[in-house]
Amino acid sequence: MTGSYVPGLEGIVASQTAISMVDGQNGRLVYQGYVIADLAEQMSFEEVAFLLWYGHLPNRSELDALALELAGHRALTHAATMALDALPGDTDPMDVLRSVVSIQGVEHRLAKPTVPLAIHATASIPTILAMFHRRQLGLEPVRPRADLGHAANYLWMMNGKEAGSEIVQALNTYLVLLADHGMNASTFTARVIASTESDLTSALVGAVGALKGPAHGGAPSAVIEQLELIGTAENAEPWMRAARERGERFMGFGHRVYRVYDPRAKILKAMCERMNPKFYALASKVEEIALQILHEEHPERPQSTNVEFYSAGVLQAIGLPKGYFTPTFASARVAGWSAHVLEQAAHNRIIRPQSEYIGPEPRKPIPLAER
Amino acid sequence: MTGSYVPGLEGIVASQTAISMVDGQNGRLVYQGYVIADLAEQMSFEEVAFLLWYGHLPNRSELDALALELAGHRALTHAATMALDALPGDTDPMDVLRSVVSIQGVEHRLAKPTVPLAIHATASIPTILAMFHRRQLGLEPVRPRADLGHAANYLWMMNGKEAGSEIVQALNTYLVLLADHGMNASTFTARVIASTESDLTSALVGAVGALKGPAHGGAPSAVIEQLELIGTAENAEPWMRAARERGERFMGFGHRVYRVYDPRAKILKAMCERMNPKFYALASKVEEIALQILHEEHPERPQSTNVEFYSAGVLQAIGLPKGYFTPTFASARVAGWSAHVLEQAAHNRIIRPQSEYIGPEPRKPIPLAER
Repeated sequence: MTGSYVPGLEGIVASQTAISMVDGQNGRLVYQGYVIADLAEQMSFEEVAFLLWYGHLPNRSELDALALELAGHRALTHAATMALDALPGDTDPMDVLRSVVSIQGVEHRLAKPTVPLAIHATASIPTILAMFHRRQLGLEPVRPRADLGHAANYLWMMNGKEAGSEIVQALNTYLVLLADHGMNASTFTARVIASTESDLTSALVGAVGALKGPAHGGAPSAVIEQLELIGTAENAEPWMRAARERGERFMGFGHRVYRVYDPRAKILKAMCERMNPKFYALASKVEEIALQILHEEHPERPQSTNVEFYSAGVLQAIGLPKGYFTPTFASARVAGWSAHVLEQAAHNRIIRPQSEYIGPEPRKPIPLAER
Repeated sequence: MTGSYVPGLEGIVASQTAISMVDGQNGRLVYQGYVIADLAEQMSFEEVAFLLWYGHLPNRSELDALALELAGHRALTHAATMALDALPGDTDPMDVLRSVVSIQGVEHRLAKPTVPLAIHATASIPTILAMFHRRQLGLEPVRPRADLGHAANYLWMMNGKEAGSEIVQALNTYLVLLADHGMNASTFTARVIASTESDLTSALVGAVGALKGPAHGGAPSAVIEQLELIGTAENAEPWMRAARERGERFMGFGHRVYRVYDPRAKILKAMCERMNPKFYALASKVEEIALQILHEEHPERPQSTNVEFYSAGVLQAIGLPKGYFTPTFASARVAGWSAHVLEQAAHNRIIRPQSEYIGPEPRKPIPLAER
């Protein structure tokens, strides 16, 4: 009746999905039948979110309706605003997001996950992040603007001024690239929660908590911190060999799925080279040394630059503060999380694996007085 | 490289654990080597929580230290209090719990899960529930009392008066019985989140969201609602056969693990008979009919009264409002969730299964203007 223990559930297929495919052998990421490279630089985040939710690309009127629905749900509820304002100013923005997404989504009676609810959650995340960021700086919040698209409005609310079109386009591409990625740990968390017939908000809040972990989405700010410690291209090799001797990890490397270069990292790397040459000069050297050292240690392991490595340089070029890198990742991935929740709810079976007991054999307890 | 799809991960062993064992064949639940029947009526919730966290029963001084630590962390933070006060009065108490646990646990820098953090989360949950309950009634909050144990203090804060010893003992037994249960969906959620190296609060918040689902912990209030609809023992059989013809579920039945009577349900059933005879008279008749109908439909399936069926009667006898049944379940299970998070963090490997793509084959996107 019980199988054997599968550490990390590696190689176990937990879901069937039409939403995305990570083709690790060929370095392809596919969303509902479209290769990421074809989407990243041609599509708006809104088009791609529509694709993930509905399974097809929108026509003009569908896209306009989505833009309207997003723009109409950017404002926070009274309770969410109050909670955000009450949080200590030094709160980790991922904890802000986890808490305020939860409050923004409170309900009176359990609601089934729907696309409109997915749209509302997606719409409000940039507002949460921008309001908290500005509060940290002692600045008044900036109201969302219905005439701006999702990426442009996020930067408007963060900075209180419109970003240039190259910057908006870069953020849009980042959001498209990060919107979904098969069965990663946060998406899996969202599906497990949804499988109990719980609500969309509960699933998204759990996913935010999972994404926070440094072994998942919590790494891009650590990439910047490691690059700052390395400082110069000349220092890369000695610093990195010494770090390895101290048993430290290289941030932004290692992935369970890709056998070849991550297609998202490839696009982000090219963007870095164009937009953030200073970062690129150091980062590309660090990447070269990291891959060399990792190859020396484990020649059998494949290419391993992950999406977070060059994400860091792109998000820095966009002007986002480092504490907002992982939350911005969440602002993209919410599209995928909610699409997976909708899919899970449509073909549900509770996700409930087993555990293997390795504790003591049953015995009688000794009363407290005799312990 | 990829295995085949396992719906619901049924039969897959996702973790090794020393915390608890569900022995479905023999109807035994074991916590760290002790059978639940030996713990339920002899131990305080505090002793059992200690057992789950540390792996052994506490001696007197360890238990005193734990009681002190719990009593010292019952108060909510300023931000948690503000958020709780800002929530709409008709918010589902599980959403209140999800949100306020998140805010109570916000941090500046990522902290590793520890027993003290588990104690603090466990200590504050009854406060969250009691404060919100009293606010719904338009009553002032009641301050926690350090001289009362965990169960007694919860009832004190809910009601503003001390509960009788039989009632306190019943709640204590309920909390012990529900404190852990192998790899259920909420515990699994907590472990998946912890496996990304995220923090304890993130894991607990995800678990609360999973427990909310009616296919997991969200059922006990539905049990009461179904019993209210049935109304009388005489009406049970005709009502239930008609319900079945309408395709409705019987609330409080069905469990993937037990082949014989759930040992927790057995204890709760006896408590119901003693404490809540009116509930018991109707519920035991409904149970009899439900099991008969379920057996007629699927003679091959085993006994299936689940823990939530008689939980409802016990919690009602304790005087808790029906909207607080699932949150009170959470106030027990937080001990198990946090123990599992500690165990996961101590022997970590990211839990990241795969998905099988069933979407369209890759093709070129049609430009927006031509769609």
